Amino acid sequence: MLTLDHHPSGRHFLQIPGPSPVPDRILRAMSLPTIDHRGPEFGALGLKVLAGLKQVFQTQHPVAIYPASGTGAWEAALANTMSPGDTLLMVETGHFATLWQKMALRLGLAPEFLTLPGTCPETGLPLAWRHGVNAELIAERLRKDSAHRIKAVCVVHNETSTGATSDITAVRRAIDDAKHPALLMVDTISGLASAEYRHDTWGVDVGISGSQKGLMLPPGISFNALSPKALAVSKTATLPRSFWAWDEIVEMNRSGYWPYTPNTNLLYGLHESLEMLLAQGLDSVFARHRRWGEGARAAVRAWGLPIQCADAAVYSPVLTGVVTPAGVDADSLRQLIHQRFDLSLGTGLGRIKGRMFRIGHLGDCNDLTLLAALAGVEMGLKLGGVALAGSGVQAAMDFFASHPAPQSLQAAA
Amino acid sequence: MLTLDHHPSGRHFLQIPGPSPVPDRILRAMSLPTIDHRGPEFGALGLKVLAGLKQVFQTQHPVAIYPASGTGAWEAALANTMSPGDTLLMVETGHFATLWQKMALRLGLAPEFLTLPGTCPETGLPLAWRHGVNAELIAERLRKDSAHRIKAVCVVHNETSTGATSDITAVRRAIDDAKHPALLMVDTISGLASAEYRHDTWGVDVGISGSQKGLMLPPGISFNALSPKALAVSKTATLPRSFWAWDEIVEMNRSGYWPYTPNTNLLYGLHESLEMLLAQGLDSVFARHRRWGEGARAAVRAWGLPIQCADAAVYSPVLTGVVTPAGVDADSLRQLIHQRFDLSLGTGLGRIKGRMFRIGHLGDCNDLTLLAALAGVEMGLKLGGVALAGSGVQAAMDFFASHPAPQSLQAAA
Amino acid sequence: MLTLDHHPSGRHFLQIPGPSPVPDRILRAMSLPTIDHRGPEFGALGLKVLAGLKQVFQTQHPVAIYPASGTGAWEAALANTMSPGDTLLMVETGHFATLWQKMALRLGLAPEFLTLPGTCPETGLPLAWRHGVNAELIAERLRKDSAHRIKAVCVVHNETSTGATSDITAVRRAIDDAKHPALLMVDTISGLASAEYRHDTWGVDVGISGSQKGLMLPPGISFNALSPKALAVSKTATLPRSFWAWDEIVEMNRSGYWPYTPNTNLLYGLHESLEMLLAQGLDSVFARHRRWGEGARAAVRAWGLPIQCADAAVYSPVLTGVVTPAGVDADSLRQLIHQRFDLSLGTGLGRIKGRMFRIGHLGDCNDLTLLAALAGVEMGLKLGGVALAGSGVQAAMDFFASHPAPQSLQAAA
Amino acid sequence: MLTLDHHPSGRHFLQIPGPSPVPDRILRAMSLPTIDHRGPEFGALGLKVLAGLKQVFQTQHPVAIYPASGTGAWEAALANTMSPGDTLLMVETGHFATLWQKMALRLGLAPEFLTLPGTCPETGLPLAWRHGVNAELIAERLRKDSAHRIKAVCVVHNETSTGATSDITAVRRAIDDAKHPALLMVDTISGLASAEYRHDTWGVDVGISGSQKGLMLPPGISFNALSPKALAVSKTATLPRSFWAWDEIVEMNRSGYWPYTPNTNLLYGLHESLEMLLAQGLDSVFARHRRWGEGARAAVRAWGLPIQCADAAVYSPVLTGVVTPAGVDADSLRQLIHQRFDLSLGTGLGRIKGRMFRIGHLGDCNDLTLLAALAGVEMGLKLGGVALAGSGVQAAMDFFASHPAPQSLQAAA
Repeated sequence: MLTLDHHPSGRHFLQIPGPSPVPDRILRAMSLPTIDHRGPEFGALGLKVLAGLKQVFQTQHPVAIYPASGTGAWEAALANTMSPGDTLLMVETGHFATLWQKMALRLGLAPEFLTLPGTCPETGLPLAWRHGVNAELIAERLRKDSAHRIKAVCVVHNETSTGATSDITAVRRAIDDAKHPALLMVDTISGLASAEYRHDTWGVDVGISGSQKGLMLPPGISFNALSPKALAVSKTATLPRSFWAWDEIVEMNRSGYWPYTPNTNLLYGLHESLEMLLAQGLDSVFARHRRWGEGARAAVRAWGLPIQCADAAVYSPVLTGVVTPAGVDADSLRQLIHQRFDLSLGTGLGRIKGRMFRIGHLGDCNDLTLLAALAGVEMGLKLGGVALAGSGVQAAMDFFASHPAPQSLQAAA
Repeated sequence: MLTLDHHPSGRHFLQIPGPSPVPDRILRAMSLPTIDHRGPEFGALGLKVLAGLKQVFQTQHPVAIYPASGTGAWEAALANTMSPGDTLLMVETGHFATLWQKMALRLGLAPEFLTLPGTCPETGLPLAWRHGVNAELIAERLRKDSAHRIKAVCVVHNETSTGATSDITAVRRAIDDAKHPALLMVDTISGLASAEYRHDTWGVDVGISGSQKGLMLPPGISFNALSPKALAVSKTATLPRSFWAWDEIVEMNRSGYWPYTPNTNLLYGLHESLEMLLAQGLDSVFARHRRWGEGARAAVRAWGLPIQCADAAVYSPVLTGVVTPAGVDADSLRQLIHQRFDLSLGTGLGRIKGRMFRIGHLGDCNDLTLLAALAGVEMGLKLGGVALAGSGVQAAMDFFASHPAPQSLQAAA
Repeated sequence: MLTLDHHPSGRHFLQIPGPSPVPDRILRAMSLPTIDHRGPEFGALGLKVLAGLKQVFQTQHPVAIYPASGTGAWEAALANTMSPGDTLLMVETGHFATLWQKMALRLGLAPEFLTLPGTCPETGLPLAWRHGVNAELIAERLRKDSAHRIKAVCVVHNETSTGATSDITAVRRAIDDAKHPALLMVDTISGLASAEYRHDTWGVDVGISGSQKGLMLPPGISFNALSPKALAVSKTATLPRSFWAWDEIVEMNRSGYWPYTPNTNLLYGLHESLEMLLAQGLDSVFARHRRWGEGARAAVRAWGLPIQCADAAVYSPVLTGVVTPAGVDADSLRQLIHQRFDLSLGTGLGRIKGRMFRIGHLGDCNDLTLLAALAGVEMGLKLGGVALAGSGVQAAMDFFASHPAPQSLQAAA
Repeated sequence: MLTLDHHPSGRHFLQIPGPSPVPDRILRAMSLPTIDHRGPEFGALGLKVLAGLKQVFQTQHPVAIYPASGTGAWEAALANTMSPGDTLLMVETGHFATLWQKMALRLGLAPEFLTLPGTCPETGLPLAWRHGVNAELIAERLRKDSAHRIKAVCVVHNETSTGATSDITAVRRAIDDAKHPALLMVDTISGLASAEYRHDTWGVDVGISGSQKGLMLPPGISFNALSPKALAVSKTATLPRSFWAWDEIVEMNRSGYWPYTPNTNLLYGLHESLEMLLAQGLDSVFARHRRWGEGARAAVRAWGLPIQCADAAVYSPVLTGVVTPAGVDADSLRQLIHQRFDLSLGTGLGRIKGRMFRIGHLGDCNDLTLLAALAGVEMGLKLGGVALAGSGVQAAMDFFASHPAPQSLQAAA
């Protein structure tokens, strides 16, 4: 039989920034019997989840659902809109922005990778990995591109590796101000349904997301929210594509079906997720995550450790990165905490590996769950020999006690 | 659809002293299809759970399983061994001891109810509700009963309403020293599989237990562990009985079946529970609960509040009762904590209602779960206006960090 | 890990007359986390299931829910209304009527057991076991009881061991015509929510039922539907009782709680069951079972075998008993069918053991499931050497094809 | 709440040739909590499923698992081995072979599509859709390709749209006899774990499969079983690829992890599936499906209808296609059967749409389930006005009764 936790008692605390803890309601829905993907019940399900997804993306336009995990949705966005050798403007905000750029290279595209140069004196970490996108850098680059060789600007909305968000409206303005025809493609894999995202209002052309973050589902399905412009561009783009091709998906989706076998049981979960999110209201969902982020940061500040994101204006509501003191290996700490306290934290990735860890505050979470995670971190930091300025748990308790959630997030009477 | 938590996000913290949090493995087993209770698969299941239960009760003799919750097992113990008007010796250790005595009255028996008189000067609470059974009082009473009118001594092993255990071996000695033939009947509903219990070695005649505590199951099945003497007595006892009658159950159980429809899906859960407990080893199970008890009491002491159980020798490893300051209604506190922090605590019962609450540390629990509960309590106490001497959460973190669980309770590599 | 079917592939066909196949929706609800039985969510659940149960029993008066299987509800009915030595009038309609009478004896009551004497020439089986209650026999006996020594008339509504129902309104008339004050107690354990049952209209005083039949739940909870007269009688009846006592249950139920720990997770299942039954409408539920009964009997007739119930006016809509030819052991047949075709059938019980088997058509069933069961029976009969007059499967297919279910029982468009 | 079956009672019969009915054990495993895909428990899971998959593919070489449905695995096979404009030899055996060829076109490749010309006089259906691959046609074509422009031969092992398998060893011989270096790529999406497939012995270079057929999982993960030659070829092939690229997957899989987020909860299901299949033994699994195929064909023959596959040597053990009489729309029949009998059958696809339907006999199935499906079909055919030569259900019952499954497929004692 399958054993998924080597600890002898209790429930694992999964406080990584995705896959997020999945509500039981969703797990149970996913265990319903698989049905015929060409039968009448399936069409009804398909139409319902497609309509709900549009509400969550805040769009009137089609959203393609892939039976593939999030990396696939990155590839789909590029494969549908680009032709071999096309130039892209990408921005280094952390590990996932870097991976997406590597994918563009692999697909035979020519990404330019803008970055904020230099390292932070306090931590020795790359500055680019402690901030969101600098829209001015983009504006500057686009102004120089009078030939319009740049086909798309690609940015990450919520950089899961650092806990910095990016101001997408500023990026949109930069493109518009430069009167540049480039598409705006946004990775909101870990942003959607946790951090505010408004596809149509913000003028995003391709919004990319996945199931295992704010939607509180296991990984395995992913999304491309489209704009009419993106759809138009896809008609002439020539990168080879079949599985990812929007045309057949958008066409078949009109009746609630897919051109090939969809990921049925994850769609069951998506149905529940959408019902839960929309019943609560997106603004309440965003407020919930913001509040947890504030509580987590209160703890990190009390410990006297740097928050990975150095810009208070773009703190992520989804996760908080914690920089460990020089000489303290963050991964050894994580391992100790996992073994002793049955708590999973996110590892430092790429250029900041070993120097930080990440606390997720998304998915099926509440104040006490987050406090438990902070307690595990605090005990682990002490056991790992980190001198703390004070008790982060105490600070977070003070925050949560004195800042009750708004009425909409409290228990119904 | 069924909604079991009115809070909008996250998993409820159930830290009452039972029903305890049920491991997912058990809940999933309980959702397997119901089978024919007269078919071959059922017989195999029946034999397996009966054998496992004997190991958990530490007995060689039959254990009757009732498709009824724990109160039924109290009635079964009395109905099988007593005749109308029989005298019983019972001991007031708290609410459940009191309820059992009321049941004896309702069944037409004549319970004598021994108690430790007086109230505690510090808290104003009845002394009897802050201690376990005083075996000397029993010894004294039995010595006077030269006519052997007392047919049974009935004690509660782990008094769920107070968090005090009782020394069952001392009670056994008291009976033996008095050379008294009374049966020894022990309610170990909340003790079994959490606190040490040794049916045969301790010389218990009827051990009464239920599913929803240390066995980590939902309520709905309960047990009578028997001694040969109890079985012999039942042959002549004349209280009317049918559903509870041991004779047919013990007879049918030889082949793994029951005289009437058993509680099939709870037996599935029992199967998993027994596999989990016996794989871990009973001594490890007991050690796990003792360690949590120590952590919880460290917190209560740091807050500067009295622990309901006033005798350190008999602190319960299953739950910790916390006495609130005079003037602070414990139930209003509990309600506030439930609403704000999605945490359920046990209410004060009977003579101590409103003056204390109970923190359960049993079932599917671990250090972080308990710390989360203590954080909820600490925030709630402050919000409720209770002046605390210090941080209980800090004290419990210090305890857990400096007292790692023994190897057998840590994660397998 | 738990193995509940020793066959290597496929889903078991459970076609016994209870426990009935449980819908997945109910099994999933039962696997939700156990909650605090004294918390606010529980009270809401309690009130909802109590209200729904009244609708299913078709009563305005209290229904007591026991965390115990059906046999317990028999005992509850007697313990609450009878005094030691009281006389009861019971009627032999089969095995369960007999067991109930044995229980009355065990509880120290004095049941008179009316029976239809003689054996059936065709099958050699007792005539009483091939018919429902003969109300005239009851009327006759009551008329003789001018001293009103008979305290209750106890009948089985749907005799699960034979597949004969009884006309409860005729029994009621017999009592009324005799102007006799006896209570009318009806075991509708396997009738409720499958066969029509109208507690108030029919004038039943105690209606007894269980979870594992028409309510489509696993066994483990059971019911007493009460009349004001039954409640009044219980105030003076003197059989000892505590667990079964109506008074505290009825009192506590007003707020949705119970005097002792209820069977929480089965109540989750009950919640779903009631939602499903009431959404479909009781009349549709009754029609569905009647139709299956007709299909099953068409098959038995085509085989040329006797139906256990010899009176077409009282054929059970819940199960069909099939009499095997003399010399063919019905249990060996059942065993062969179970091993070869993964199908469970009901055994012959008591006086008809080995001479018949039972096909259940209740619970999570549909036309194809029943046809599959009939196919398993037909193959088994042939393999067991029974000469058949024709194909029962063919007859049942003809019936189902030519008698579509009413619109309310077909798939929603 | 999610409603997946619009019928009011009973369990849906899913007898399409995939997604196959998923065993409860697998559905329950899939509902376990999602874990950290970078934690220690995940690595252990990864290694275990990768090892088990090799056993099922019967290969010593790597198997890539994609978090994508089966169509993705087709694309992966092409994207890793082909360069733009490459020539492929594909064979028209039905709808899925046709779709794969269309995908090759979309990806900018140059597939040649071999076919068996002509239509069948009996049914008017294309001959190519009633047979498996004709290896001689392949041999002939390869002999002409002295320049070795053909880079791969692509065939479908079990054509899900027709119920004809293909002799893969004959195709291998054709390539070898022609001393041709083309890769052999085999779609065994609906063959693997139902029909015999031996990757290494048969000399397949890329074996493509999916989760939702013989592996009895929901759709959403798919596989490429590789040969050393295929891995070597992939190093120089130049189709752009990133998500599908074997190199990083094979590298990361050595430690049980994946380069991007895997489909965690479907991997839980895969773990159970592999345990079930390997415990039973692959030969037993193949025998089980063959036996069901024989039963299903006995029914079709008794009805007097043509079996879609016209070559008895390559009847599929996974599904049986049934040709309807001219003038009878197979899809209207399917719709009638779905509405009346809660049974899903496979639709006719592509060139045979409306002229046939398909009965799946795979996944969580047994004799009675298949008989139920045949009963639904038989009633539907009659209601749809099709004159039948005889009872298919009777024929299948006769077959199953007289051909017991081998001991290994019967219930354990």
